[in-house]
Order: sequence, then structure tokens, then C-alpha cells
Amino acid sequence: MELLEKTIKKISSLDQASMESAQTRLDNLTKPPGSLGYLEELAVKIAGITAETLPDVSQKAHIIMVGDHGVVKEGVSAFPQTITAAMVKNFLKGGAAVNVFANQYNVDISIADIGMVEEIKDNKLIQANIKRGTDNILKGPAMSHKEAVESIEVGIKIAEQLIAQGKNIIGTGEMGIGNTTPSSSIISVVIENSLDEIVGYGTGLDKKGLENKKAVIKKALEVNKPQKDDGVDILAKVGGLEIGGMAGVMLAGAAHRKPVMIDGLISGAAALIAYLIEPDVINFLIPSHKSVEPGHDKLYQYLNLRPMFDLNMRLGEGTGAILGMGIVESSIRIIKEMATFDTLDF
Amino acid sequence: MELLEKTIKKISSLDQASMESAQTRLDNLTKPPGSLGYLEELAVKIAGITAETLPDVSQKAHIIMVGDHGVVKEGVSAFPQTITAAMVKNFLKGGAAVNVFANQYNVDISIADIGMVEEIKDNKLIQANIKRGTDNILKGPAMSHKEAVESIEVGIKIAEQLIAQGKNIIGTGEMGIGNTTPSSSIISVVIENSLDEIVGYGTGLDKKGLENKKAVIKKALEVNKPQKDDGVDILAKVGGLEIGGMAGVMLAGAAHRKPVMIDGLISGAAALIAYLIEPDVINFLIPSHKSVEPGHDKLYQYLNLRPMFDLNMRLGEGTGAILGMGIVESSIRIIKEMATFDTLDF
Repeated sequence: MELLEKTIKKISSLDQASMESAQTRLDNLTKPPGSLGYLEELAVKIAGITAETLPDVSQKAHIIMVGDHGVVKEGVSAFPQTITAAMVKNFLKGGAAVNVFANQYNVDISIADIGMVEEIKDNKLIQANIKRGTDNILKGPAMSHKEAVESIEVGIKIAEQLIAQGKNIIGTGEMGIGNTTPSSSIISVVIENSLDEIVGYGTGLDKKGLENKKAVIKKALEVNKPQKDDGVDILAKVGGLEIGGMAGVMLAGAAHRKPVMIDGLISGAAALIAYLIEPDVINFLIPSHKSVEPGHDKLYQYLNLRPMFDLNMRLGEGTGAILGMGIVESSIRIIKEMATFDTLDF
Repeated sequence: MELLEKTIKKISSLDQASMESAQTRLDNLTKPPGSLGYLEELAVKIAGITAETLPDVSQKAHIIMVGDHGVVKEGVSAFPQTITAAMVKNFLKGGAAVNVFANQYNVDISIADIGMVEEIKDNKLIQANIKRGTDNILKGPAMSHKEAVESIEVGIKIAEQLIAQGKNIIGTGEMGIGNTTPSSSIISVVIENSLDEIVGYGTGLDKKGLENKKAVIKKALEVNKPQKDDGVDILAKVGGLEIGGMAGVMLAGAAHRKPVMIDGLISGAAALIAYLIEPDVINFLIPSHKSVEPGHDKLYQYLNLRPMFDLNMRLGEGTGAILGMGIVESSIRIIKEMATFDTLDF
């Protein structure tokens, strides 16, 4: 709990002076003022996050948190739990979608076992297992309050290590068969829309599967009664270890003034947990894509965040976060590399 | 006219066999089927365009067509006409937004004077001037029918040269103070929505300026009476030389089975001209962003094209097209570089 509290205390607000000087520079570049739209807003926000007019976001890291879910016993996923470990091996070999995008955008990937059922002995995998999969949320809490805090602190530690190595922007991604169920549960607790508006097909349920998933979530919320303003309580009762880990990465990024990318539904649920723990974290988070999952859009509305693009993606791993880092890079290259009007020859 | 006719004759349909084999491969990659959404559709489309299951889009070219507009005398732009040449010099020095994005995405830029008022002697500028600015469309046609055809053929020639050099994807962009007016005129002729739904603020008109711009377009359409199903007639009467040039690039790309990126409103108007000349061209065009200009959205609806992202941009130059090439590259990297399910270890 000490590391979490220390981290929260370090989180402050966006740096207004840097944002103003960034805006002034943007208005002097060789383009009509404001004509790069959201890219300009993004450059100003990153200036506020980093407290630098011309920030460096060239050292890109991406963290994939991996955890399993006891609730898969209830048939909430179209894929078997063994896929979690199989995909981790795929990440380690470089064969997954997230690896492909990371190569394109020059992003270093870290993969952490924070809650997998299977143990994978590979020195490229960060060994940070807290629990070999959460417990079935239909029967009781996913994990203890202590384990929930620990998952967040693992995320903080991993992020701080990357920041110490010079990384200046961090993506969040995950792997964990079944994890749209805890994510939708978290969002439902906080946003209180009907489950029909929040719960989606995940990686490929059919209609019957979707109805079962909603029924499972409804019952899990009744059984566990998570407190809607207590992020750690919600995480412990209906969350997941990888979700806690990502929330920790977000809190650490904010504490160290580094932008952290939100990916899809699960990463979004982590942002919600981080927000409940410390609302100011939100200023340091950059939404990337809007996922197919309906709860993701509701979440963005709730947090008043605007996704960059909607490509109908629903893969996870942080694939959207990495594509979004390309857009962040574009916005910062604009403010750093474009000519100013006084150099124009006319 | 001969080159244009020869080019049109070469345009055929998407290659179904390549699209099917691309789809089969996508479904075997280590991800839930369809979970990369639009990126998968894009990979299939590019397979159809190139007639290759695993196409190469690594050799990226971008063409900026430059032309001036007699109609600027009517106060339709917030910037003076001298900015056209000043920005061309900026492109040549590498200081514009389009240069910054081209560096990020490793795209070669070609800049062509197809209709500038000012002559710039620089051997990095393609000298293809047809006319030193269009005539004022409030008084009569922008150019002759012969000049309109010539502008399209200049575009074809430049694109064919790049393709001969090995370029396998081409972006379209432009510079020309005042060119949202001819573009909106073209779109109004074809789509026949009210001008209120089509005409926008361009690079920064105020409300009064917008009303004047609409009045100018209304009168220009009355004076010139362009024929709504004749692309060359519309181009000659209310278009622009850079618009014709971009339409030529699109037709050449289609003829040689290379994807061509649509940028914003002006590039979109060029796509409409190309479509009227040969409807099958549309299969070979890839829309990138959705611009702030209202006519752009209407155009996409009319052509049944789906933009990749909406970042509230309205700069032109092809800035959106180049960001879009990054997404195209992502889609092709996915189909070429990801592992297949049979290699998974579980």
C-alpha cells in the first residue's frame, strides 16, 4: 500500500505554462491555425503532461499484462483458457498482431505474468505472478483486497523500471481469456447503464453466449456488491490482476509525467479503476481507438475522453494503443519539426 | 485525349481470387477472426487492387499538385494567393506538415506545378504548368475542355513515372489558395444537396466569408451550367488544374492496380471527377481521413467510401493521405508478418 500511496501523492495537474507555449508555437507554424485539429490538441496535452513545450516521445514502451479468470468456467468466452499461455508464447516469439505493430512503430514490448494459470519459464517474460488466475466472480471476489493493491503496485514497479530506462511514452495492453467479463463488470458498477448497453460479444460469442455473459455479470455484481466509488474494492471483487497491473502503469505514468496510452475495453476498465483511485490520473492518459465493445464508448463518454479513431477493432493486446502512439508521434513531430511562418518566402 | 482513353480502358475490377486467399489467410492468423476490423477489410481490398495475396506497399509515393484559382478575386479564401507559391517553396525546403508526416512514414514526395500563377525555378519541382491559374468561375469556365483533359493526362504521366520507378502506393495532395471553392462546386453539381450542407469555412473564413463563398458558388454554377454526369465538363467549368491532376493520378493508379490514397475535400472532389469518367476507379481508391469540411462527408456517403479516421483536420497537402498510408502499412504488415494458428503452442 505504501508504494501506491506514494505514487498517488506524486500525481499533480497538467502544466499550464507548457501548454500555452506549445499553443503559441503551433499557431506560428506554416499552416492555418488549428488546421491540424486533434493533432494540435494532442501536442498541447502532451506538453501539459510532460511540462515541456517540445516533448520527447521517441522512446516508446508497451506493457502487456497477462492474467487468467476463474469466471471462464461459466462459459463467458469463445476461447479456452489455454489460449492465454499460448498467446504469451506467441508474443515472446514475435508472432502476434501487437508484435507486428510494435515493429512498425518502433515500440519495445514488455510482457508480464501478473496472474496467469500456467507458468511459463522464459527470461523474456517478467515473472510477477500474484495468483494463478482470479477466483470465479460468480461465487465470490476475484481476489483479496491485498492482492488487488499488489497488482496495482506490480504495474507501478514495471512502469517505473521502464521510465528509469528512459522510456517516455507507455502503451497498455493485456492478454487473458475471459477478461471482457470483469472489464464489463467494472464499467457496469461505475457507470450504472443497463448491461445491454455495456456488455458485448468479446472475442466472438454468439447471441446465446452474450445473454449468458450478461446473466453471469448480473449475478457476480449481486454476489460481490462492489462499492461504486472504491476502485480497489471493485478491482478485488469483480476485476482481474492484469486490470490492476494496467491501472498501476497508468498511475505511475501520471506520477512521472509520462503519457500512457489507453487501448480497448480492458485497458479502459483499468483507466476507470485508476481514475477512482486518483481522478487526476485522467489528464495523463491518451485514448487511442474506440473498440467494438459497447462498454468502451460508454466509458469514454463517462471519462470525457475522445478516442482518436474507430477501426472496428476488438483484439486487445494493446494493438490500438500502439497505432495511437503513431498518431502521438505525428503530433509531436509537427510541433518540433515544422517551419514557422516567419521563415516563409512570399 | 488518347492517353486518358488508353488509361480508362486498362481499369478493370478487383481481383476476387486474391481477395479470397487474403481472407483465408487473415482467418488463420493468431487472433479471433475479424478482430482487427477495418484493417482486415483493408488488407483484403489491397489484395483485390494489386491482385496479390501478400502485396507490397512499402514503396510509398505522394504527389502534391499545385494550382491557383481565378475565383480568389471574389474573396473566397482567408489567405492571399501569394501563399500558394510560398508554401511550394516551404514544401521544397521540407518545412510543411506534409514533409513532417512523409519523414515519419518514409514517403517520397513529388511536387508538381500544374497551374500556379507564379513560376518557381527549382529542379526539385515538376514543371508541368498548363495555365497560370484558372479563370474566375464567376465570369465563365475555369479552363477549356482541352486544358481539363490535359490536366488529367499530366496526372497520369506523373503517376506512371512513379510507378515505373517502383512505387506501389500513391498519396494525393494539393496546394492552391481558394481551392475549396472549386471542390465544393464540383461536389454540389454532382450530389445536389443544398450548399449549406456542402460548403465549409475552408482554411479559416468567418461567417460572412462563408455566406459570400456560397453565393459565389451558386452564381458560378448558374453561369457555367456544368453537366452533372460529365466529369471533364465539370472540371473545365468549375474545377481546378490540381484537381484534374489528382484525378489523373487516381485513374493511373487504378489502371496499374496500385492503391491511391484520397486525402481531404479537394482530393475527394478529384475522386468524384475520376469516378464520373470511369466508375470502376473507385475500387482502387483508399479514403484516409474525414475532413472538417461538410462536403467531404457527403462525398464519402455518395461514393460509399468509409474514412479511416476523423481527426478534425482541414489542412490539405495530403496530410491525411500520408497518415492513412501508415494504417495501410499496418494492415499489410498484419497479413504478411503475423503467425498462423497452426504455429501456436497449446
